[in-house]
Amino acid sequence: MNGLEHLDRVAAALAKLPGIGRRSAERMAYSLAGSAGNALRELLEALKAASDNVRLCERCGGITTLDEMPCRLCSATGRDSTVVCVVQDPSDIVALERTGSFKGRYHVLMGVISPLHGESVRDLRLGALLHRVEAEGFTEVILALGMDVEGEATAAYVAELLKGRNVKVTKPASGIPVGSGIRYSDAMTLARALKGRQVL
Amino acid sequence: MNGLEHLDRVAAALAKLPGIGRRSAERMAYSLAGSAGNALRELLEALKAASDNVRLCERCGGITTLDEMPCRLCSATGRDSTVVCVVQDPSDIVALERTGSFKGRYHVLMGVISPLHGESVRDLRLGALLHRVEAEGFTEVILALGMDVEGEATAAYVAELLKGRNVKVTKPASGIPVGSGIRYSDAMTLARALKGRQVL
Repeated sequence: MNGLEHLDRVAAALAKLPGIGRRSAERMAYSLAGSAGNALRELLEALKAASDNVRLCERCGGITTLDEMPCRLCSATGRDSTVVCVVQDPSDIVALERTGSFKGRYHVLMGVISPLHGESVRDLRLGALLHRVEAEGFTEVILALGMDVEGEATAAYVAELLKGRNVKVTKPASGIPVGSGIRYSDAMTLARALKGRQVL
Repeated sequence: MNGLEHLDRVAAALAKLPGIGRRSAERMAYSLAGSAGNALRELLEALKAASDNVRLCERCGGITTLDEMPCRLCSATGRDSTVVCVVQDPSDIVALERTGSFKGRYHVLMGVISPLHGESVRDLRLGALLHRVEAEGFTEVILALGMDVEGEATAAYVAELLKGRNVKVTKPASGIPVGSGIRYSDAMTLARALKGRQVL
């Protein structure tokens, strides 16, 4: 391979990441070559360390390291073991933890039902979820799966699976985002917000 | 370091690349962890191969490999050795080669004079350019440096340096891009296009 072919291979690997188009992947790859090797070495070392150490928790599917298995959130004794929050992706856990308002356990599905992207029910960690609901005795399952069509379809499917298992199934409220106004909200969001209105 | 800290390190390295903000770097890093290691391994191997093999040509500064030094474009016998095209970045060579309309040599400055970005005259490969003009006996130097303020300032500076060295200094025409119309061009571009008008 010549130099450009090597960079094209880097660009192809970068273009598979979310939000990165072919053109910006090329710009990134070429800039790695142009910066006298420092940026390239830095990225390489960071990726090597991540590749050697980062793993997904065998229990919840969240991000952890080889030497913390199960992860801190699964093994923490101070957390509420009666409620589990089901999410699509490990990074959803990071976002939820940032709020500081959930203190239960997590379970990552590793996707949602999405025939268009080739993700079917079989690819999801649903068996593991059913097993945990049984084994860990959760009394509530929160389906925090995103308010798009795929997220809602997956939530409906999981709720159906959990029926008759003596567990309360909930999902986060959908409505007007904090800081936004009535006039800036789309009709669907407003309809949801009205339907889910709360007594003051 | 825990898993998230490893990913944050990857995100920090990615965020240094052009066009990548902190948020999209985080999304990229988390997606690398979520995809069961395949995307991570692929990117890691591509970067490793690039890091081991890709080098900048000692002569022109373009992209090449360890075992092609000087690069193909510098050592090609079929190219015109009387004209050198001076560019800002190795990737500019790729863009110019794609046109198929330049068959001379190249010289990469590795930047332009840009006090705002901490790039001064000293960081550029100007000594090497003057040496090559002398040693290789170019009769024309094309300053293909971009039509922004920094590119034009650098072109003016290099042209001044080359004065009295018995070499013709030129730069590419500035004007209306192919496929665009008069009404879509900004005033500066139109003024340039008029000033540089050609006899039919």
